[in-house]
Amino acid sequence: MAKDMSLLWFSGSPPCLRVMIALEEKNLQGYEQKLLSYEKGEHRTQEVRDVNPRCQLPVLTHGDNIINESYAVCLYLEAQFKSQGTQLIPDGPAQQALMYQRMFEGVTLTEKIADVIYYQLKIPEGERHDSAVKRHREALTTELKLWEGYLEKMGAGSYLAGKNFSLADVVIFPCFACCFRFGLSAKNYPKLADYYGLLKERPSVEASWTTNWQTSPPWGKDKLKDL
Amino acid sequence: MAKDMSLLWFSGSPPCLRVMIALEEKNLQGYEQKLLSYEKGEHRTQEVRDVNPRCQLPVLTHGDNIINESYAVCLYLEAQFKSQGTQLIPDGPAQQALMYQRMFEGVTLTEKIADVIYYQLKIPEGERHDSAVKRHREALTTELKLWEGYLEKMGAGSYLAGKNFSLADVVIFPCFACCFRFGLSAKNYPKLADYYGLLKERPSVEASWTTNWQTSPPWGKDKLKDL
Repeated sequence: MAKDMSLLWFSGSPPCLRVMIALEEKNLQGYEQKLLSYEKGEHRTQEVRDVNPRCQLPVLTHGDNIINESYAVCLYLEAQFKSQGTQLIPDGPAQQALMYQRMFEGVTLTEKIADVIYYQLKIPEGERHDSAVKRHREALTTELKLWEGYLEKMGAGSYLAGKNFSLADVVIFPCFACCFRFGLSAKNYPKLADYYGLLKERPSVEASWTTNWQTSPPWGKDKLKDL
Repeated sequence: MAKDMSLLWFSGSPPCLRVMIALEEKNLQGYEQKLLSYEKGEHRTQEVRDVNPRCQLPVLTHGDNIINESYAVCLYLEAQFKSQGTQLIPDGPAQQALMYQRMFEGVTLTEKIADVIYYQLKIPEGERHDSAVKRHREALTTELKLWEGYLEKMGAGSYLAGKNFSLADVVIFPCFACCFRFGLSAKNYPKLADYYGLLKERPSVEASWTTNWQTSPPWGKDKLKDL
C-alpha cells in the first residue's frame, strides 16, 4: 500500500504512464488518484499551479515531497523503495551504463515524437511549414530506426537494457505506446512491435492501461502510419 | 586517477561541461581527452558515429562501457564511484526528491535556452518568424524567473537542492553558465548571478573552465541581454 501518496494525472499521457508503471512495479498500489482532463484545461487551475508552476502532469505527492517530473519520480521511487517490488536499476557497471544511456536517449525520442504528433498544438498556424513537418517526420523515422536496431541487437524477448525489465523500460515504453496509438506500422517496425506486445502484457502496464491508451484519437490515428 | 576512461568533448558545450564537472567532483582526473571542433564538423566522422549514432558530444568511454548522454554519465559515475570524491546524491527522501526534481526541470530549462540561442542554427531560413523568436524569448524569461525564485527561496549561499552541492548543480550550472556567456544580465537575475559566482569558484568548475567559457562568441554576446 502506498501511504501518503497521491497522483495528479492525464489519461493517454506518456509521462503519466511512466509514473503509473513505476508505482505498480514498486508495489505501491492504492495511492490517491485524481484524473484531470487536458481538453477541459483542468491542469490550468491554481491547485495544479501550486504543485507545478508549469501546469504539467504528472504530479506525485509523497508526504511533504512533491515531484512533477516523470523521470525524477521514477528515480525517486526506486531510491526510496529499493528492496520493494521489482528492482529497477540493475547491478553491475555494464548493465547500469546501458540502462542510464537508453533512459536518457528517451529524452530525445520523446522530443522527436512530440515534434510530429503535437506539431499543430505547439506551432501557431501562421508559423507552420510543410518543410518543417517533413523534416520532423524524417527525424522521427531516423530515431525510430535507431531503436529498432537496438532491439534487434538485444535479441527476441529482451528488454531495453538487458534480460531484466528496468527503469529504461519504464520511461521508454510509454513513448512507443504513444507511437502505436498514433498509427505506427508494426510491419515497418517489427522489433518495436514485438517489444510493445511483450510489455503490454506486463501486469504493471495492464494495470495502468487506461481508456485513452485503448483507443486512438480520431485526429491522430493515422498520424504515424506512413513513417 | 581515472583509469580506462576517455572523453570526446566540445569546448563551450553545457552537456560536456556537466560531465567534466562530475569527473572532477568524483576525483576522476587524468582521463584521456579528445577535444573536437564543432565548427570544423569534427563530430561528423565515422569515429564519433561509432560511439554515438546521433553525432553529439560528450561521449565517455569507461572500459567497454560507452555513454553519450550527459545526465546518464553523471548518474553512472555517481553509482560507480559512490564513496569517492563528493557525494552527489544526498541522503534522505526530502533532499533526494528536491534534487531529482530540479535535475529534471533542467531538461526543460536546457530546451528553452536552446530555442533562443540556437534558433538560427535549428530553424532553416525560410521557416523563421519574428513571432516565434518573441515567443521563445518570453518562454525563457518565464523559465529563468522561476529559477530565480527557487534560488531566492533557498537563501544566500545555498545550492539548488540544499546546503550541499549535488547532481542538480552538476547538470544545471552549465545552463546558467551558458546564459551568462550569452549576455544574461546579472542585474535582472541577481540570484542566478550570485549562484553563478558561487559555483564558478568551485575547484571542479575552475578545472573545467575552458577557453570558450571565458569568452562570448561575437554573434551571441548580447543574445540574452534584454531578457
